[in-house]
Amino acid sequence: MNMGVLGTGMVGRAIAGKLASNGHDVKMGSRDPEAALARTEPGNDGTMLADWKAANRDVAIVPFAAAADHAKIIFNATSGSGAMDALVSAGEQNLAGKVLINVSNPLDFSKGMPPSLFVSNTDSLAEQIQQRFPEAKVVESLNTVNAAIMVHPSAVADGDHTMFLCGNDDDARSTVALLLNEEFGWRNVLDLGDLTAARALEMYVPLWVRLFATLGNPMFSVKVVS
Amino acid sequence: MNMGVLGTGMVGRAIAGKLASNGHDVKMGSRDPEAALARTEPGNDGTMLADWKAANRDVAIVPFAAAADHAKIIFNATSGSGAMDALVSAGEQNLAGKVLINVSNPLDFSKGMPPSLFVSNTDSLAEQIQQRFPEAKVVESLNTVNAAIMVHPSAVADGDHTMFLCGNDDDARSTVALLLNEEFGWRNVLDLGDLTAARALEMYVPLWVRLFATLGNPMFSVKVVS
Repeated sequence: MNMGVLGTGMVGRAIAGKLASNGHDVKMGSRDPEAALARTEPGNDGTMLADWKAANRDVAIVPFAAAADHAKIIFNATSGSGAMDALVSAGEQNLAGKVLINVSNPLDFSKGMPPSLFVSNTDSLAEQIQQRFPEAKVVESLNTVNAAIMVHPSAVADGDHTMFLCGNDDDARSTVALLLNEEFGWRNVLDLGDLTAARALEMYVPLWVRLFATLGNPMFSVKVVS
Repeated sequence: MNMGVLGTGMVGRAIAGKLASNGHDVKMGSRDPEAALARTEPGNDGTMLADWKAANRDVAIVPFAAAADHAKIIFNATSGSGAMDALVSAGEQNLAGKVLINVSNPLDFSKGMPPSLFVSNTDSLAEQIQQRFPEAKVVESLNTVNAAIMVHPSAVADGDHTMFLCGNDDDARSTVALLLNEEFGWRNVLDLGDLTAARALEMYVPLWVRLFATLGNPMFSVKVVS
């Protein structure tokens, strides 16, 4: 399937690399692909984008609009603060009618560490995106684990933990639930209903940040038990 | 040990009842004990306080200040919106030097269901309590599960799930971790460090509310897996 991944950071790379290795035609969107590929400082994962690209030759790195235009399913893997600009660049017409999986969290690093959220409680980044692009089918998921676990849940606890999703379109939620299972291997996907649940998923992230600090590494997740 | 539990709702009853059954001398604090006992409408657990009291004769129901004065360890099990007034009634001098376990969440029901939080993100109810009562040793815990699970973790998943705590006083955190294990049976208690982690624990509650709606009952918890 034609897939688009907006953002060339750790999250975008993990998702795009996995989808390409599964045989999908993946275009990764960047504000400025040439500049991103020319950057010599490594990303959060310690790898320069050019080196990652060399190891993932089948993934094209193109402007946001070309990636969105190409895709039937689009992942927003940009930073929270850059998400809305990236999606505007992607183009409303290129998002319309498509499943748009928001992985981005509204993290605000401007007041230092740990980050706070620039939207929370009575609104969420996913809802703001849905409101700005009413014809996109926004589904929030994957934002509660680190990039490596998103596409390889068995990296912790043999995959016996929980992924959440929410969104206003029933078919889009079903599509994403199936994709999470078939492409990434998530066995426990919990559908929380409409997109207001994104408030809860994004407000979980400060606990993730605190758990990261306490456990000393990001290879953890939570399992809902009853 | 002399224990105080502020609040006579479901949470206060669960904690006070369990501590009393373990042999502790428990006083439960109320704004107006006589009025609370005279109330004929049942609480959230379907039981009138007077009936609960009849089944828990060893628990005295007294004014907030008397419960706090009596106690070496105090649980704040009041509603979030009533917490600060209750603690002011309890009396700064009766809280000073004592471990004060905040179980209360800053839930705001004024805009309907689901509740939002009246403090979050860059502050928390627990931190506000600590600031107002600097000589109390505030520890936040138990606020991430329902009352029945707080004192009986094996009610779900054979007790194989996670309880969190945080607070600024190292000894107080250790005291609470031991209490959670020995009095209530928590096997997995995760110490998140200083009280700023209360922001994360309280911001988890909207996800709890959403999980409650999705799962249809409150008998669930989360296990941190790695």
